Amino acid sequence: MSAGNDVFGDRSSAGAPQPFFHSRWVPAPEHVRDLGPGAGLPAGFRAAGVACGIKPSGNPDLGLLVCDAETPVSAARFTATGTPAAPVLLSQEHCRLDGLRAILANSGCANAATGRRGLDDAAKTQGAAALAVGVQESTVALASTGGISWYLPVDAVLKGILAVQGQLRREGDADFQQAIQTTDAFEKRACLEVELSGGPVRLTAQCKGAGMISPNFATMFCFVQTDAVLEPHTADLLFGVCVKRSFDRCSVDGQLSTNDTAILMCSGASGVRIAPESEDELRFGEALDALLRQLAILMVKDGEGAARIARAIVRGGHLEGIEAAARGVANSPLVKTALHSADPNWGRIVQAVGAALPGTAPLAVDIALEGIPVCSAGVAIPYDEAELAEALKAKEVEYEITLPGEGAETEVFFSDLSHEYVTINADYTT
Amino acid sequence: MSAGNDVFGDRSSAGAPQPFFHSRWVPAPEHVRDLGPGAGLPAGFRAAGVACGIKPSGNPDLGLLVCDAETPVSAARFTATGTPAAPVLLSQEHCRLDGLRAILANSGCANAATGRRGLDDAAKTQGAAALAVGVQESTVALASTGGISWYLPVDAVLKGILAVQGQLRREGDADFQQAIQTTDAFEKRACLEVELSGGPVRLTAQCKGAGMISPNFATMFCFVQTDAVLEPHTADLLFGVCVKRSFDRCSVDGQLSTNDTAILMCSGASGVRIAPESEDELRFGEALDALLRQLAILMVKDGEGAARIARAIVRGGHLEGIEAAARGVANSPLVKTALHSADPNWGRIVQAVGAALPGTAPLAVDIALEGIPVCSAGVAIPYDEAELAEALKAKEVEYEITLPGEGAETEVFFSDLSHEYVTINADYTT
Repeated sequence: MSAGNDVFGDRSSAGAPQPFFHSRWVPAPEHVRDLGPGAGLPAGFRAAGVACGIKPSGNPDLGLLVCDAETPVSAARFTATGTPAAPVLLSQEHCRLDGLRAILANSGCANAATGRRGLDDAAKTQGAAALAVGVQESTVALASTGGISWYLPVDAVLKGILAVQGQLRREGDADFQQAIQTTDAFEKRACLEVELSGGPVRLTAQCKGAGMISPNFATMFCFVQTDAVLEPHTADLLFGVCVKRSFDRCSVDGQLSTNDTAILMCSGASGVRIAPESEDELRFGEALDALLRQLAILMVKDGEGAARIARAIVRGGHLEGIEAAARGVANSPLVKTALHSADPNWGRIVQAVGAALPGTAPLAVDIALEGIPVCSAGVAIPYDEAELAEALKAKEVEYEITLPGEGAETEVFFSDLSHEYVTINADYTT
Repeated sequence: MSAGNDVFGDRSSAGAPQPFFHSRWVPAPEHVRDLGPGAGLPAGFRAAGVACGIKPSGNPDLGLLVCDAETPVSAARFTATGTPAAPVLLSQEHCRLDGLRAILANSGCANAATGRRGLDDAAKTQGAAALAVGVQESTVALASTGGISWYLPVDAVLKGILAVQGQLRREGDADFQQAIQTTDAFEKRACLEVELSGGPVRLTAQCKGAGMISPNFATMFCFVQTDAVLEPHTADLLFGVCVKRSFDRCSVDGQLSTNDTAILMCSGASGVRIAPESEDELRFGEALDALLRQLAILMVKDGEGAARIARAIVRGGHLEGIEAAARGVANSPLVKTALHSADPNWGRIVQAVGAALPGTAPLAVDIALEGIPVCSAGVAIPYDEAELAEALKAKEVEYEITLPGEGAETEVFFSDLSHEYVTINADYTT
């Protein structure tokens, strides 16, 4: 289970490598080409990762990603938690988030619940990274993941910055990815090419996360790079929408982290411009959307202890209602244990939906599992039990839930609840 | 783990029997005497339980409780779910809930998601029970627990009603209790005497529940009897407040059931009247409150797979905020796995509180575990790690969480998340 052994998820299994877009829920857009793991970053980006000593294991724990463009464009999204970590606060309050030049990311320490000292520690590493890279401090974003309440070993990080700066290169995305991983069982990384009217642009991403938060190792990160030319407003708009449709729609354990961070950076080095409200914007948006959705699904698939994942798709006439129902199903330990054991016990879905929507009794809910209707208007209907039991053994399972009314639809991707989850989170104490 | 072997919870362990009030969180009221399990129901009540064939195991599955008073007083509370079971709908819509004469309760089948047929089935058993007992249909409440989506075997229940009616007696509360149990590992039952100004009254209760809902065996029930004379308004008021302070404040898996039912019945047979707003009302209310709180804690203690339980007590200035924080902590699988392993990883509490209160950053949260402060204004503070680790090994653990502001306080009792929970809910498929 060591991080990074399994390049590109389960592509390393015997036989032909699996394409990046392999979930039933994310068709590969036609104008997007998978370049494979070794293609490297888009023009204008360099990255590296080193072990600087934050992790007692000696595994890589410090990553640096740099955009060499003088006036790059970027967009960022952070956790909505009430208890954000120091690097999140610092990045939000003191960075030019639409013009980032670099990201300094570490694993092994979240620098959360560390107060004034945590902010000072973060500021020191930000300053050192800016100096090493030769950019302004306000253009260096920080991202940390690891144990909450531990202080950052600043001296180790400062030495690490010097080391990692010396190794920056376009093919450094794999090393950067390794340095940000914690309990991840496999890499979540992509190198894509998007065909636009002005020529091809490259779109790469490195993502980490195996649980919204895990025992001492918190958080999801997703860093995305492109050499396309985007205006700040376009970058922010596209990234915001795509994050909402991907990372905001998945749950391993329903636990929002103190450190979640997602950043898009655009070097513009390809010279291919994406004009607002153009056909190219649509095509790039589709590529970005598919990329983030596949990464989000990979994160759920790598959810702590996960053996099977599901999509709850909920339709109805009331947006808040369908959202509550989808979250209720996705976060129910009873639904998650049933998913784990491929148990056709859909009564747990009725229960979770009803519990999420108090005051609506009697609720006319329709339920279909893998396309097989089992409940109509809140009442059990006959179905082929053997067929259903077989269908639920798939690695990706779909629950369709229909509530009264029309016009609204939502989805949540989620993992099962297994013995392995308990082992990871209970048996290995701090 | 068979139901009913372990009379009165863990009282059966070697040595002196444990008193009913044994949780640190529920001091026994001074004017309340524990009569022990064999004392029987208050005057005016009879009960019995039989095996009528709903459960394939042949275990008891049908219980009948009758109040012989001509004009009894009662009060009831039901699940708030949007998908209530047929017996809940029928009891709510067609019963005189302030004047119930009988309760027909079964385990082994929830009669939920069964639509029109489920309501008809429930109505038939209600009619048969009314006939057997010799009371009006509208005075017979129904309560079912078991598999969702299964139809009630009406013929078996009708035969069972005749059998159980023939066995009604004041000492039948133990049999009644057994007939309503499902995955419960031990009985949750009490026989108390409350000293009032007009003399003693008896207060008994039978409770079931080991998870708000469990795999195919759903629900919590609590049936309470007294021979005190209460007015309907007083009964409803006291019972409503006490249910809110007990069953509404506990969580095994955060899952509201389709069938939750709690009913208080007052025979008045003691002739001891409890006048509204009197000292006696206060004393009786204290007894009822302590009874329901101890039963709620027993339910959490018997939570599926539970080895350790906790109370999250949250204080602050904003009622909705402290409620969200308390529920967030109690239902976090990360907090629950940490509780299980006595892991002093309080970063998970910071994370759960922050996640429950988005938009409040940076949140000045104080945390103390077992009275040992670990976090002040959102920042880690020094503490004796060995002392904390030792304290967390208690069977009942307390987390104190203080948010900004003053004047509001809430609590949630919850169980841990163990391998056994996953085993119960995932490994035994339907």
